[in-house]
Amino acid sequence: MSPSVFDPGLESITVAETELSDVDGEAGEIVVRGYPIEELAANATYEESVALLLDGDLPTADRLATIQPTLVDYRAIDDAVRALLDAAAGVGVAPMDALRMGVAAASLGTDADDSREAAKRVVAVVPTIVAAYWRYRQDESPVAPDPELSHAANYLYMLTGERPSDDAVRGIETYLTTVIDHGLNASTFTARTVVSTESDLVSAATAAVGALKGPLHGGAPGPVLDMLQSVHDSGDPEGYVRDRLDAGERLMGFGHRVYRVRDPRAAVLSAAARQFYAGTDDDGFYDTVEAFESVALDALADHKPDHRLATNVEFYTAALLHGVGIPRDLFTATFAIGRAGGWMAHCLEQLADNRLIRPVSTYVGETDRTWTPVDKR
Amino acid sequence: MSPSVFDPGLESITVAETELSDVDGEAGEIVVRGYPIEELAANATYEESVALLLDGDLPTADRLATIQPTLVDYRAIDDAVRALLDAAAGVGVAPMDALRMGVAAASLGTDADDSREAAKRVVAVVPTIVAAYWRYRQDESPVAPDPELSHAANYLYMLTGERPSDDAVRGIETYLTTVIDHGLNASTFTARTVVSTESDLVSAATAAVGALKGPLHGGAPGPVLDMLQSVHDSGDPEGYVRDRLDAGERLMGFGHRVYRVRDPRAAVLSAAARQFYAGTDDDGFYDTVEAFESVALDALADHKPDHRLATNVEFYTAALLHGVGIPRDLFTATFAIGRAGGWMAHCLEQLADNRLIRPVSTYVGETDRTWTPVDKR
Repeated sequence: MSPSVFDPGLESITVAETELSDVDGEAGEIVVRGYPIEELAANATYEESVALLLDGDLPTADRLATIQPTLVDYRAIDDAVRALLDAAAGVGVAPMDALRMGVAAASLGTDADDSREAAKRVVAVVPTIVAAYWRYRQDESPVAPDPELSHAANYLYMLTGERPSDDAVRGIETYLTTVIDHGLNASTFTARTVVSTESDLVSAATAAVGALKGPLHGGAPGPVLDMLQSVHDSGDPEGYVRDRLDAGERLMGFGHRVYRVRDPRAAVLSAAARQFYAGTDDDGFYDTVEAFESVALDALADHKPDHRLATNVEFYTAALLHGVGIPRDLFTATFAIGRAGGWMAHCLEQLADNRLIRPVSTYVGETDRTWTPVDKR
Repeated sequence: MSPSVFDPGLESITVAETELSDVDGEAGEIVVRGYPIEELAANATYEESVALLLDGDLPTADRLATIQPTLVDYRAIDDAVRALLDAAAGVGVAPMDALRMGVAAASLGTDADDSREAAKRVVAVVPTIVAAYWRYRQDESPVAPDPELSHAANYLYMLTGERPSDDAVRGIETYLTTVIDHGLNASTFTARTVVSTESDLVSAATAAVGALKGPLHGGAPGPVLDMLQSVHDSGDPEGYVRDRLDAGERLMGFGHRVYRVRDPRAAVLSAAARQFYAGTDDDGFYDTVEAFESVALDALADHKPDHRLATNVEFYTAALLHGVGIPRDLFTATFAIGRAGGWMAHCLEQLADNRLIRPVSTYVGETDRTWTPVDKR
């Protein structure tokens, strides 16, 4: 029973064997169910990526004909949840707080009963919650999901009320698949810990949203956009980088606990962003983004040569999501829409060969105290 | 970076040093901030126990005069949350699911802003959510919190609408302090993992509720009561135990991953239950409980001599909570009311010296797959 290892970040501890994804931070490679992330992101619909994670193989046409309508059916949210999101919008809570509230109540208004159904329910309903909340925040009515539209297209449609362009759909779809799974990140680990008590997948997803909300995990792409827009306005990336580094500040969008080289997702998303912006009038913004990355990497290599700070996923997330029309304040919630597929697949994997996750603590507090009544304290 | 330890339950891993509580499973001892749990449970109000955990020392009269009104102020829930609980009751969701929904929305209707205020908000509001949901489930209106009543008394009052007896208040208060903290149990660890991303305490508490819901963690005291009532009705504990063990079933209320001797909380709760039932007409039920424990321990020692299965906290939780009038279906939610103090103190401790909790996984899945279009699968 005596613990042998003290590791407050658990970085040196392997808590699960997984068939879902492999992250090689030294080589800069991500594999999802055996497919390099670049290949999956370039080709798969989000529904295909979800089916791949849940089933183990890319879906056949027959399987797609089953899972797609299910994911459509599970999109709807209950009236009481809508009213709660309206109230939350009234006091301006952060979108991730609203998403936590909505996912916590995702077991209402659905007939999803077992874990596999709950997994699809969660994946299907997260975009509806995010979009409904956002519409309330804009003093507009929510837009009902359109069963004719794909998961990615329907998310954009529920945000704006307008059918999105094919280019925008392809951009957001690439993003959602790119971030769908990433080993045992903090929110995925949180989800597995919750279901390890034999709790349910809605509880696990709610917990994962709470973890993803933290700035150390999913909370930085919004500020990256602010940085990029500031540089685009000034036209002076060198000056921006120099000022930040001279002030001892970190540069957002660079560095990751796992990667020692460029995050492979940055390459996928930069290609997607380049392609998207090329079809718009806003390609000058993308030029700024690429120029800024180059200036920043040079400066970081000079400034901290031992740190190997490389471009992370948030950098091109900000560029791509901004391009396809996702409001800055929804970047982390949109991350949750993508990651929901991974969360749910990890929960099913955990439950298939479960063991309660329960580490220990060492007591370093007071000892041998005896009760003192309040008038003697 | 290469992981050195594989431990899917993390049982051998120490993830935190804590000054909050010490659990010695070999000796059967629990210490909270230096006080043996027996001493604290016999003397402290729940408010004193919360202040002890949050501050480090038992509160002075001045400190109590500050924290008690704050805990009263933070009891109220927002109208939208009440409506959500009403809708949840309409479809009969489990109380822990309703509690997850209510806690997820606990950031509404409050001015608690920083982490220390959020900690008190969560502690204060959990009983209101549980009681409001339960009233809706009974087709009755929620009872507003009574600012004149203590935390423990107000919980009973909000359930029934009647001022509880001093004996019942003392019984539930003993219970709430007894379970307030217990090292890194799965829900507390979940809460610490969530805030380790620098997320907020409401998100952490929501996640913890989801973990506590699992049958491997907080989910068993209800079935223990069913067992005790069945034995009380039959008057034949020996027969009940023999039938279960012969059928290869486990006996609920016995055995715990940490304890090799009697859980010290069982002693505290059995004394509290004995005292409570002695003042009622129902002391025959308590006699059954004690007789059953004795019969079960003898039979378990014969049946599995190597397992050292001892009475766990759930056994006398069921007896005590039933006695003071907590409905069976609220046992786990009442556990959450007590544990909320520990969750919040652990979150503050984690944030005071934080490191992102992020273990790793080993990939054992497919490799080297290449994309195949759907018509070729």
